[in-house]
Amino acid sequence: MRVRNNPDAKILLKENSKYIESVDKLQEILAKNTKVVHVEIGMGKGQFISQMAKIYPDVLFIGIELSETVLSLAIKKITIFEEENNIILNNLYVMSFNAKDITEVFKKSQVDKIYLNFSDPWPKKRHQKRRLTNEEYLKLYRYILKPSANIQIKTDNRKFFEYTILSVTNNSDFKIDEIHLDLHKDDILNVMSEYEEKFCAKGPIYMMIIS
Amino acid sequence: MRVRNNPDAKILLKENSKYIESVDKLQEILAKNTKVVHVEIGMGKGQFISQMAKIYPDVLFIGIELSETVLSLAIKKITIFEEENNIILNNLYVMSFNAKDITEVFKKSQVDKIYLNFSDPWPKKRHQKRRLTNEEYLKLYRYILKPSANIQIKTDNRKFFEYTILSVTNNSDFKIDEIHLDLHKDDILNVMSEYEEKFCAKGPIYMMIIS
Repeated sequence: MRVRNNPDAKILLKENSKYIESVDKLQEILAKNTKVVHVEIGMGKGQFISQMAKIYPDVLFIGIELSETVLSLAIKKITIFEEENNIILNNLYVMSFNAKDITEVFKKSQVDKIYLNFSDPWPKKRHQKRRLTNEEYLKLYRYILKPSANIQIKTDNRKFFEYTILSVTNNSDFKIDEIHLDLHKDDILNVMSEYEEKFCAKGPIYMMIIS
Repeated sequence: MRVRNNPDAKILLKENSKYIESVDKLQEILAKNTKVVHVEIGMGKGQFISQMAKIYPDVLFIGIELSETVLSLAIKKITIFEEENNIILNNLYVMSFNAKDITEVFKKSQVDKIYLNFSDPWPKKRHQKRRLTNEEYLKLYRYILKPSANIQIKTDNRKFFEYTILSVTNNSDFKIDEIHLDLHKDDILNVMSEYEEKFCAKGPIYMMIIS
């Protein structure tokens, strides 16, 4: 997704109570929290995580997005979503940082579930290091996840999914619990991201849950 | 594939020099053999294995088919294929036995590669034991395969392929070397079975290589 950079994004974010500006602030929230903690890495415009926060009020959702510009768009959309549904999602927060720093943000075994929705496939071999399902990232996730926790990975990119199967099964401590090679043909609850709604007609959606 | 039972199949097979009637006969052939040995389990009407035998003259191919009736049809088709191509495939043999007995037919580490092409998916949960990629079968294959050998699994059945991914990664000594979730979109040499030619237009062909 390409979004024009918005220099005012930071100001917009800081004004919003859902935005967590610092690690200290996050840890303060988590210290008081009694809910299970689900994290979406690469939340984009936030359709998935805001719908999830509505469906699961007993889960604390934390959305992460590298781009502050995209995150400020997400904040606007979440506000509209709350108004339309006449709810306040006080179980939803957002943050902006690079996923490679995730173990400096969350402590060991602090997270109950991670969602990776339509992550950038980085198709070029030389960009493999940037793929959010490479073995280095999987190690970081393992660290912040509770032992019994799992990761849900969804994509429409066949090559990225093939890569992820190999990465998970050959280079990680995770095992595959569930796999769907055409998710929309299976009869399970599926909350869609903006991207998924837009592109699912073009081919299958792949999903796996690993733990 | 449903084929009417032909009581004369056994007679037709016995008359053909490609048909191996007994384990002793197979072991006699293998004792003299200097080629690498590739086995197709469930060869059906034999289009795949006869084309492979033509392309790879330095490989000894052994096709296995439970149904003697189907095998006699395969023998007829192979004979026509030889005549049309003006060749004699002296690197191709066929046998009829139940795959669950494969370790009584081949000795330990006697096989260099196994092909499973469009195996019966046995979709019902209670028939899981019959699926040729369940953990019991994978153990049998491990026994007859050389340590460095691999298995190539191809199917158009999504649920069977999902099952196979889980079976291989969670319940076996095999690891996935290669995976294709839409084989015909990838630029690799692909010899097709009758079934594959007929059904590939209906959806993706899945393939994996495990070792």
